Amino acid sequence: MEVYVPEPISKLIEGFMRLPGIGPKTAQRLAFFVLKMEEEDVLDLAKALVRAKRDLRFCAVCNNISDREVCSICSDKHRDRSTICVVQDPRDVMAMERTREYNGLYHVLHGAISPMEGIGPDELKIPELLKRLEDETVQELILATNPNIEGEATAMYLAKLVKPFGLRVTRIAHGLPVGGDLEYADEVTLTKALEGRREL
Amino acid sequence: MEVYVPEPISKLIEGFMRLPGIGPKTAQRLAFFVLKMEEEDVLDLAKALVRAKRDLRFCAVCNNISDREVCSICSDKHRDRSTICVVQDPRDVMAMERTREYNGLYHVLHGAISPMEGIGPDELKIPELLKRLEDETVQELILATNPNIEGEATAMYLAKLVKPFGLRVTRIAHGLPVGGDLEYADEVTLTKALEGRREL
Repeated sequence: MEVYVPEPISKLIEGFMRLPGIGPKTAQRLAFFVLKMEEEDVLDLAKALVRAKRDLRFCAVCNNISDREVCSICSDKHRDRSTICVVQDPRDVMAMERTREYNGLYHVLHGAISPMEGIGPDELKIPELLKRLEDETVQELILATNPNIEGEATAMYLAKLVKPFGLRVTRIAHGLPVGGDLEYADEVTLTKALEGRREL
Repeated sequence: MEVYVPEPISKLIEGFMRLPGIGPKTAQRLAFFVLKMEEEDVLDLAKALVRAKRDLRFCAVCNNISDREVCSICSDKHRDRSTICVVQDPRDVMAMERTREYNGLYHVLHGAISPMEGIGPDELKIPELLKRLEDETVQELILATNPNIEGEATAMYLAKLVKPFGLRVTRIAHGLPVGGDLEYADEVTLTKALEGRREL
């Protein structure tokens, strides 16, 4: 790729370029930074890469990323087993956990229904979710898929699908982001915020 | 750092965060991407990290980054040994090489004189440069340090220092970047562009 670069560094640049959002310039900057890092830190990063790839799998219950058969949330006896929050991605679990407000379980779909991208219900972890609902301890299903077309479609689909189970099915609220500015809100969000208004 | 993340992934996020310009959000995005990468590609990246750190050193002649005692440019018999281009950083060598216009040798200073940051001539590879000039095959020294205060100061300092050797000492030209817009050029660059005007 470069006119003249020693092979170990061009290999590293190529390696970094395989990561998302990292182009040739950034890859080069990162590679040269690595040369200046402490050897121990470089070895740590290399080990972390290998371990993350080798030791991580999906939780057999909720399909979240886990380092064991059943993840630490699913196996935590202090969590409320009557509620399952359905999200699209493991990162959404992390986002929810950061609120420190939710104490139920999760179910990670690994995507959303998207006819445009050829992703139907069968490509998602929906059969696994239905199986979990057979257990009668589950009383509420919180649909926390993304607030966009695919996420809404998935939430609607799931709401219909789980109707026979007779659970409480809720959808996370739409509205203005906290700290946001009404003036700059888009019409759809503002409409949703109005629709969702509550008495004080 | 995160409320709930399996340890292999939090370690990887921490590892990425040690790289420059990578904050928590980007580190998280990269780490989750790694989980989806082919195992082979992840191992390649890990190996490249370790090899870059272990196998690279500085060329004994020009101080450029190299995978052997004397770098491939310094040991290339087809390069013009009468010219040495002095640059601040190994990345500058890569930039020069990309032009495919320069066929001489290099000397990497590993920095520029900066009283503000406490970097004097002794912190740079200047004694090594003087030693190379003792060889009489060198006839021209091109000062290609950066076009900023530190780079200019270093160029001025070197020009004076090497005067006794009686070589041709040149400085790369300042001017408008190709493809740039005169309207948006800063005054200093425009002044330099005017000063450096040439007859057509």
